Amino acid sequence: MRRDLTALFDPASVAVLGASDDPAKYGHAIAVQALRANGRRPLHLVNRRGGTVLGRTAATSLGAIGEPVELVVVSVPQAGFEDAVDEALACGARAIVAITAGFAELGAAGLVRQQAVADRVRAAGALLVGPNCLGVADNTTELFLASDRFAPGGIALLSQSGNLALELQLRLAPQGLGFSRFVSLGNQADVTLVDLVADCARHEGTRAIAVYAEDFGDGRAFAEAAARAGKPVVLLTAGRGDASARSAKSHTGALTTSGDVVIAACRDAGIELTRTPRELACVLGALDAGRRARGRRVAVFTDGGGHGSIAADAVESAGLAVPELSAPLQADLADLLWRQSAVGNPVDLAGMGEQDPMSYARTVRALLDSDEVDAVLLTGYFGGYAAAEGGLGGAEGALGAGELAAAEAIADAVPASGKPLVVQSMYPSSPSCQALRAVGIPVHEAVEDAARALVALAPSPAPATESGAPCPALQPLPPVAAEPVGDPDYHVTRRLLETAGVPFPPAREIRSEDELRAAAREFSGPYVLKALHLLHKSDAGGVVLRLADEEALVAAHRSMHARLGAPSYSVEAMADLSDGVELIVGVNQDPRFGPVAMVGLGGVLTEVLGDVAFALAPVTAEHAERLLRGLRSAALLDGVRGRPALDVGAAAQAVAAITAAAAARPEFAELEVNPLLVTPRGALALDSRAVPA
Amino acid sequence: MRRDLTALFDPASVAVLGASDDPAKYGHAIAVQALRANGRRPLHLVNRRGGTVLGRTAATSLGAIGEPVELVVVSVPQAGFEDAVDEALACGARAIVAITAGFAELGAAGLVRQQAVADRVRAAGALLVGPNCLGVADNTTELFLASDRFAPGGIALLSQSGNLALELQLRLAPQGLGFSRFVSLGNQADVTLVDLVADCARHEGTRAIAVYAEDFGDGRAFAEAAARAGKPVVLLTAGRGDASARSAKSHTGALTTSGDVVIAACRDAGIELTRTPRELACVLGALDAGRRARGRRVAVFTDGGGHGSIAADAVESAGLAVPELSAPLQADLADLLWRQSAVGNPVDLAGMGEQDPMSYARTVRALLDSDEVDAVLLTGYFGGYAAAEGGLGGAEGALGAGELAAAEAIADAVPASGKPLVVQSMYPSSPSCQALRAVGIPVHEAVEDAARALVALAPSPAPATESGAPCPALQPLPPVAAEPVGDPDYHVTRRLLETAGVPFPPAREIRSEDELRAAAREFSGPYVLKALHLLHKSDAGGVVLRLADEEALVAAHRSMHARLGAPSYSVEAMADLSDGVELIVGVNQDPRFGPVAMVGLGGVLTEVLGDVAFALAPVTAEHAERLLRGLRSAALLDGVRGRPALDVGAAAQAVAAITAAAAARPEFAELEVNPLLVTPRGALALDSRAVPA
Repeated sequence: MRRDLTALFDPASVAVLGASDDPAKYGHAIAVQALRANGRRPLHLVNRRGGTVLGRTAATSLGAIGEPVELVVVSVPQAGFEDAVDEALACGARAIVAITAGFAELGAAGLVRQQAVADRVRAAGALLVGPNCLGVADNTTELFLASDRFAPGGIALLSQSGNLALELQLRLAPQGLGFSRFVSLGNQADVTLVDLVADCARHEGTRAIAVYAEDFGDGRAFAEAAARAGKPVVLLTAGRGDASARSAKSHTGALTTSGDVVIAACRDAGIELTRTPRELACVLGALDAGRRARGRRVAVFTDGGGHGSIAADAVESAGLAVPELSAPLQADLADLLWRQSAVGNPVDLAGMGEQDPMSYARTVRALLDSDEVDAVLLTGYFGGYAAAEGGLGGAEGALGAGELAAAEAIADAVPASGKPLVVQSMYPSSPSCQALRAVGIPVHEAVEDAARALVALAPSPAPATESGAPCPALQPLPPVAAEPVGDPDYHVTRRLLETAGVPFPPAREIRSEDELRAAAREFSGPYVLKALHLLHKSDAGGVVLRLADEEALVAAHRSMHARLGAPSYSVEAMADLSDGVELIVGVNQDPRFGPVAMVGLGGVLTEVLGDVAFALAPVTAEHAERLLRGLRSAALLDGVRGRPALDVGAAAQAVAAITAAAAARPEFAELEVNPLLVTPRGALALDSRAVPA
Repeated sequence: MRRDLTALFDPASVAVLGASDDPAKYGHAIAVQALRANGRRPLHLVNRRGGTVLGRTAATSLGAIGEPVELVVVSVPQAGFEDAVDEALACGARAIVAITAGFAELGAAGLVRQQAVADRVRAAGALLVGPNCLGVADNTTELFLASDRFAPGGIALLSQSGNLALELQLRLAPQGLGFSRFVSLGNQADVTLVDLVADCARHEGTRAIAVYAEDFGDGRAFAEAAARAGKPVVLLTAGRGDASARSAKSHTGALTTSGDVVIAACRDAGIELTRTPRELACVLGALDAGRRARGRRVAVFTDGGGHGSIAADAVESAGLAVPELSAPLQADLADLLWRQSAVGNPVDLAGMGEQDPMSYARTVRALLDSDEVDAVLLTGYFGGYAAAEGGLGGAEGALGAGELAAAEAIADAVPASGKPLVVQSMYPSSPSCQALRAVGIPVHEAVEDAARALVALAPSPAPATESGAPCPALQPLPPVAAEPVGDPDYHVTRRLLETAGVPFPPAREIRSEDELRAAAREFSGPYVLKALHLLHKSDAGGVVLRLADEEALVAAHRSMHARLGAPSYSVEAMADLSDGVELIVGVNQDPRFGPVAMVGLGGVLTEVLGDVAFALAPVTAEHAERLLRGLRSAALLDGVRGRPALDVGAAAQAVAAITAAAAARPEFAELEVNPLLVTPRGALALDSRAVPA
């Protein structure tokens, strides 16, 4: 399944078709960059009019080059695109980077055209990136086939937007971070995001994979490739709101997926999900140095009380802990600091840094050495003493030099400790902050960015299940069930779920009063009577509960049948609802991510609070329990007001069984159990339904 | 009540006591700044050792100056503080700015010392800022008595932290924003935040008031002063989490208030609440130009699809709307743009800007002119064509000049339209962006900052009540009730609330079976029996519901009395709970903000979801309804699943009555009605309790 992308990232030779001297043309910008690598491999500029381009003789066609070319960049007007691709394949191209636009992004006709081209490329055993892309670069092989220069570094950037890629580059440069590779995804007619993630996962020069995508293509395969990557995958995507979904659709013709599903897929695949270029840059900056925290406890260390309070709030509201330090550690810190310093966490030098800059380094070291915290946030003025435009103290004098020495001592201590330090400084470009950055310590101007970096470095919140199994929790799809169900009527769906291990109360389908009486004798009351094969059985009064005995059942059946005339009915043993909570469990087929499970508190709470959780189906029982315990109203499961705790384990087993059964049946657009009753004694599915795809 | 602060902000003469040539001393930094105003008013530098300071002859004491001094900055060691203040008062000082630290922030003894000094200053008819403050500046009167230079502008900054003030200054400078005044609050021993807000509200040179505070002092007076200010008040504060509360306490000895109460007070007083210096700078930058949006509808306008999607998400998740534009407006835009442009909102030039930069200006104008949107967000590459380090296009050539011309056209159109434009640009310091900033258009590098600016410019979400009364909703405190209640027992509290207009079911307090029987005949069953004067009546089985008739009531009383032996009981008519929802309504006394109301869904939902809302008490019925309808589970009030809608108006009337009664009785630490039953037919208080202060 893995595609060999060597011809794309390290071709033996390159041609730029549409290279131009006209700065307004894209073929100009690409040619300018391509020439930077002059010498590593043959590079041919091709322009139909011949002459020279950027001072080099241009060939008038690929054929005129006189030797095969492994990678061809096609930057020609749309009308000539197919001919250009054919010409490239005829010249032996193994990879084509198609800049030319005007295909799927303009509608159905364009989609057909690009698919035909992609088919021809694949039939020739070659690769196609694009069309409608902005190029490719690989700094590890000196391949520069994009309009802009991407500074070298460890990040592979796979982007569906050229401008956002450029913005990310602008943001990462001041942090000293750069790129191993850049691929503009374009319309993904052949080479997809999934192919590229899998290849970058294997690529030695790549430490982290950054993705901007609007259309995930095979979203499940993307999630699986990311989960298997063995290095951080950080995703920037939109699509939470109505307007961005509208926009993505018009921009790339993307089939978009609900934001809830993307969030769930990322959580389960271990993908860091971000919402803005700044957040993406923050997370990449944090991950680049490779020092991760073992837990979620942060020491906030400041040189001013206000910064300490604001930072502690920012860290806590990002979901991390700022625990009060123990009395022995406070005593140790008090020995290092002066009387007015605070040592509880936030730790506040309270002016001591101005007298003794090395107190910064001593304190950072003491905090990193302690087993009470997993990471340290230094926040406030630090950097200002040695900053050229610094305030009190200024660049001149011993204070600035002392601060720089402290920065160097910190830069020594952090890698040795293995724990992350993140810095917020009023003077982020000061010499002291540069000294910290040089060893991969993230330095931010804004405290919320520093907090976001700390979150990226922290492990996921501890799982609530006993085995302590960590995320990622992505499960493989089960094989498709051998015998598809034709009409998934009520009893068919019920039997299918029962076979999968979902417990239901006894029930019989009946078509006459005789069958009804026979069924009533098979199990004891109270009974439930449901009319079947009606569109909305409970709206139509097609469900009656609490029928005490056979006679009540018969009376209800007569009345219901006179009213509804349903072709058949279900007689069921009524469950004891008095000490239970109703859950809802559903699985829908998403166009990008396949079967997606939803679990939530049922009944009125579902409608009023929308308190539900999503995951790619199937989910294990353990993951299901984590989802249930993560609901806002999860406390209801623990037995509020002296009620006994519910058997959440049994509910989770049922969720696992339901999602496994649904995932094996792509012929159902939806499969739902509602309610799934969970009591202190177990779980019981009280109703179910399926909708054919 | 308003204090005259002229001696502080525009004194006839100034002396700096503790002025020094030693750059490590604070008296040096103050003297350096003070000298910038040389000429406006007499300035005297005082140093005990005499000689010269900064090249000027220093007086050895205030007395040695030989003439009265109106404002004295005291920057002397702590031991000499009281003598210095006395010396200043003796020399006729009307205002003292006390830099000296080591008072309330170090504990109780320091608090006593600073109070004694403040009393002496007040007795002399003078003002004291601090102690433990960093100075005062007023750019409108050329008064520079802080350690740093604050660029002139329209913002009055009142800050409890020197470093955060400095950070704000660093952040606002690139936006071209500056300060009318700066006051370091210090320990607020005499001049308080409230005095300063009131004075800055009257100050002509101040357009907006920015506050960083950990301790609000009289929080209610602060909220009232802000609500009456007639200009924006923007607050930066911490205290949401445990750690920041710990930190604020240790930093300033502050009595802190729950974050929920601060949020509610800000909402009701119309104070913009912010959490970080960056957010504060964003909001101030947005408010400075004075163009506010009339509604919450934003047009997102971009030159790249990715930026459009990300920006639309950022705007929508900030709580604003990005509505699809009407067909006629889309047609108008399509006439202005080219074929591949998107016109639905986001509006995307899709490359046209590169061919015809003036298309930016035409589109911005068309969007501002439309009555379908209230504000415009321009996001993406704009700025890059004219940026020196620009990408495609670069600074040379017609493209950059064309972009700058477009920027100038936009800078003309925005003030004329009166609607706000906010810009996110990859090149925020480019000439084009500078041209926009020059007319007060906020330009941000990050789209989330641009979204925050738009939120600051938008009106509050529309009130849910019929009269459409706008926030602020801050009500004055009622006069304290004339006759304090001694022991607020159950029936006393109940009568007090009934008198205030809160409906209760009939009830009688009884002490014997005879009284019980007599009470039962006064109204019909079913009955409720409650044991009184017990600490936790429902935990002890001291409440029995649904007693059908007199005999059931007598039996229950016998059993309960045998078990609990309570001194008295309450017999009540049982309300019909079948179609109602239980609310909880409480009022607590906050040490800073006085009576604070809490309303929420009662019963299990309160415990499980914590779905409650806060407001400063008393609240009007209209505001109470807004609070109730803003609850997460508010849909329960509208009658889910075909149930009739509840009488929220009656519930809101009861909330108003309860909060008014509680606000008039500071002798109660807490007053609570729980549950307040709301049904389709009205509201009824079923239980209440009060806790004496």
